[in-house]
Amino acid sequence: MQHSTIPPLRITVWNEGIHERTEPGVAAIYPEGIHGAIADGLRLLLDGDPVIRTAVLADPEHGLTEEVLAETDVLLWWGHIAHDQVSDEVVERVQRHVLGGMGLLVLHSGHFSKIFTRLMGTTCSLLWRNGAERELVWNVNPAHPITAGIEGPLVIDKQETYGEFFDIPTPDDLVFISSFSGGEVFRSGVTFTRGRGRIFYFSPGDQAYPVYYHPQIRRVLANGVRWAAQTAAGRTPPAVTNPSRGWFQDSPA
Amino acid sequence: MQHSTIPPLRITVWNEGIHERTEPGVAAIYPEGIHGAIADGLRLLLDGDPVIRTAVLADPEHGLTEEVLAETDVLLWWGHIAHDQVSDEVVERVQRHVLGGMGLLVLHSGHFSKIFTRLMGTTCSLLWRNGAERELVWNVNPAHPITAGIEGPLVIDKQETYGEFFDIPTPDDLVFISSFSGGEVFRSGVTFTRGRGRIFYFSPGDQAYPVYYHPQIRRVLANGVRWAAQTAAGRTPPAVTNPSRGWFQDSPA
Amino acid sequence: MQHSTIPPLRITVWNEGIHERTEPGVAAIYPEGIHGAIADGLRLLLDGDPVIRTAVLADPEHGLTEEVLAETDVLLWWGHIAHDQVSDEVVERVQRHVLGGMGLLVLHSGHFSKIFTRLMGTTCSLLWRNGAERELVWNVNPAHPITAGIEGPLVIDKQETYGEFFDIPTPDDLVFISSFSGGEVFRSGVTFTRGRGRIFYFSPGDQAYPVYYHPQIRRVLANGVRWAAQTAAGRTPPAVTNPSRGWFQDSPA
Amino acid sequence: MQHSTIPPLRITVWNEGIHERTEPGVAAIYPEGIHGAIADGLRLLLDGDPVIRTAVLADPEHGLTEEVLAETDVLLWWGHIAHDQVSDEVVERVQRHVLGGMGLLVLHSGHFSKIFTRLMGTTCSLLWRNGAERELVWNVNPAHPITAGIEGPLVIDKQETYGEFFDIPTPDDLVFISSFSGGEVFRSGVTFTRGRGRIFYFSPGDQAYPVYYHPQIRRVLANGVRWAAQTAAGRTPPAVTNPSRGWFQDSPA
Repeated sequence: MQHSTIPPLRITVWNEGIHERTEPGVAAIYPEGIHGAIADGLRLLLDGDPVIRTAVLADPEHGLTEEVLAETDVLLWWGHIAHDQVSDEVVERVQRHVLGGMGLLVLHSGHFSKIFTRLMGTTCSLLWRNGAERELVWNVNPAHPITAGIEGPLVIDKQETYGEFFDIPTPDDLVFISSFSGGEVFRSGVTFTRGRGRIFYFSPGDQAYPVYYHPQIRRVLANGVRWAAQTAAGRTPPAVTNPSRGWFQDSPA
Repeated sequence: MQHSTIPPLRITVWNEGIHERTEPGVAAIYPEGIHGAIADGLRLLLDGDPVIRTAVLADPEHGLTEEVLAETDVLLWWGHIAHDQVSDEVVERVQRHVLGGMGLLVLHSGHFSKIFTRLMGTTCSLLWRNGAERELVWNVNPAHPITAGIEGPLVIDKQETYGEFFDIPTPDDLVFISSFSGGEVFRSGVTFTRGRGRIFYFSPGDQAYPVYYHPQIRRVLANGVRWAAQTAAGRTPPAVTNPSRGWFQDSPA
Repeated sequence: MQHSTIPPLRITVWNEGIHERTEPGVAAIYPEGIHGAIADGLRLLLDGDPVIRTAVLADPEHGLTEEVLAETDVLLWWGHIAHDQVSDEVVERVQRHVLGGMGLLVLHSGHFSKIFTRLMGTTCSLLWRNGAERELVWNVNPAHPITAGIEGPLVIDKQETYGEFFDIPTPDDLVFISSFSGGEVFRSGVTFTRGRGRIFYFSPGDQAYPVYYHPQIRRVLANGVRWAAQTAAGRTPPAVTNPSRGWFQDSPA
Repeated sequence: MQHSTIPPLRITVWNEGIHERTEPGVAAIYPEGIHGAIADGLRLLLDGDPVIRTAVLADPEHGLTEEVLAETDVLLWWGHIAHDQVSDEVVERVQRHVLGGMGLLVLHSGHFSKIFTRLMGTTCSLLWRNGAERELVWNVNPAHPITAGIEGPLVIDKQETYGEFFDIPTPDDLVFISSFSGGEVFRSGVTFTRGRGRIFYFSPGDQAYPVYYHPQIRRVLANGVRWAAQTAAGRTPPAVTNPSRGWFQDSPA
């Protein structure tokens, strides 16, 4: 058997954290917060003693200081009703870290977060309906690392409906497509590259339903974290260079 | 207004043509054959007096002689129960023309045709069920020429169900995604480039339902033909070259 | 022959317009401005009496009022030393029109323009060197409409060198790759979709060399304009919808 | 530190093995064969005691029996002058394993191998010239696992020149672009998905030059093997299914 020594993954789960404080129904589903449920799932499924933090909007600097981001291999982002309360300074900081190689998982209503729309360049708008419909999540990319161990479809008995047209750039990889009882379809799992960073958007997950306890949803998130992580990479965004002719002759062979 | 002079499109609609001869129910829906219904739709929607031929399996050389292909800008392909009766010689000829720039639209059960599987390199297998379910065809690419004039979803009241996993290479463009009453999803409109040729696979359309009379399905096929056509291009597949250093200095400026 | 009636293309060529006023060498190459040379090339090659305007930074609202954009099918953008003088209000307006379906061609040093970096979400940084090196532009996508009539390579005797890593998102289509005498390579022709709009970035073209008079460069720009134009489309960016279940049953068949 | 227990990678390096037996110059460079040099490089760079076999054309069934392939996570393929001597039966077997999830690295002149052209569906033709030119291999995808630890450009002092147009389908990921002293460019590192399998084509490497001893070329091959391997996956190519409506309700939650 192979025994490799790799530094443990460092993960930060960020959550707006408002629904849980203001809506008893949500608090009942997520007593530790949505971030707590997500962190629990990752702890369960990721080998190698990952370092998992959580942070919320109400924390100073939203809990996303330069120091925290510098120690984060992959950031997960859940937000919904307070996107505009996220400070532009923190958004720029997160963008810089993503371009420098930090992985980013954007979840559910995070499609409208400042960080996601800024990285996409589009409206990221979509069709939605809150009808407690059944969502089926189909794996259309069985060779992709994010679908390892996932047979389709994942069945989510009750969910908010998201539908096309989802205004995102053409993704690098289309991983999952969802259908809903009402007939809508949605590109529910898509990846992007921005700078040196890897981004995975995954739509299942809503404050009103216990989606983040679903074993296969947890598996997808764990796979996504592993896929997005680049433990060995530096954290320098690409920058302009102006080298003289033949500069590469001094490169190491 | 702009008056441009472009040679008329030359289109060949190929159909296996067996269901219509052996099944009265199919003959009742498609008295002129599936190819006849498709050709009628194209005649209705394409400006500029296109030259539209049809050809069937039973024709000599399946109606796809070197001469016919040389005069075809776009070939449409419908087949189902007799893929193995298509001669390898004709398949190689069609492949050569596609690589040389002829457009190809592969329809419905044509996913299992020799020409499609050969151009894809995969099994092109899928999930299917004949349950007369409702198909909804969603436009996920509103900037694509094939969706011009198409608002989604197209509603097809009764259809054969096709579902994922559809074993095709990653398409160049994902244009349509279908859902079915049973909950399945399918990448129902996808494009590929092979050599100099453009390929569009579009799944709606079955011998048991009058799908090829659906006005919006006809619109998609007409758009697909226009998108796949390269009237000005030659018909030479890419080939190995072995030029001497600096050969391009003689290129026209 | 086919006689179709299509409304004429409406094109706006935007140029910063500073080099030509402040540097005699540039004024000597481009007496009508870079925008003038580009507009001349398009007039020469586009059939159907296109309506071609030009606009520059110094114009009120940079010449890009709501009215002008509403009457523009494709906008070309050349900028270099004054990106930060472009008002954010105009940039947002242009972005809205692109997302709504206006075509956009971004040229050369426009890679660092506000509008391009905002649509990309990355730094758009690159390697550069001003060494009057020879650029070869290779066609790696002979089936693409933008390469119609273009055999490779295009030979540009003297050019500014652009090299990888070019920090852009994965393009929808890679069309051209350039090499330079110094050995660098650059993805010099790439396309993107954002919202309903089509974007083409094409790097050849610098204020210090007469690149925009090169017949094949002009051909590429004319092809790019035709590819990016959607004359029949509306101009509405994608937006959130919240329809009730079964809303599409009223769609036209 | 993280200690994970993963079964060791199982790798088979396949080589035609003719140049080394018939040309003293090649034998001098590759005394253990091209396959031997490649295997040595992988042994040096891959942790976890990988199981590395080699096989050559002259072996019974070319050394690629059902048993060998069933025990192979990743197959590397080098061939040049004897592509037509590879039996169709073995090619079909390899294709089946790739579609079922075996990784495949196709090297240099393997672009014309039966297995590669069959998986691509195109001619896979290219421009070539044997002029001992310098090749520069540029990393255009710094977020890709295959470029981990690779700063560009790799400098190969003498190489056979490969140039565009390279007649392959649009790759899933473009990883490397090469330039040559003569000015040609080539998409020298590209990935594809076929069925459940991952494919990496990497062009540097020729029998006449000691490219497979180059430390960074070896790094790329090791990265490619890790990227293509799916140790946990089964080995079943996608196949048609015909389930009854609602079949997925019995899926595990």
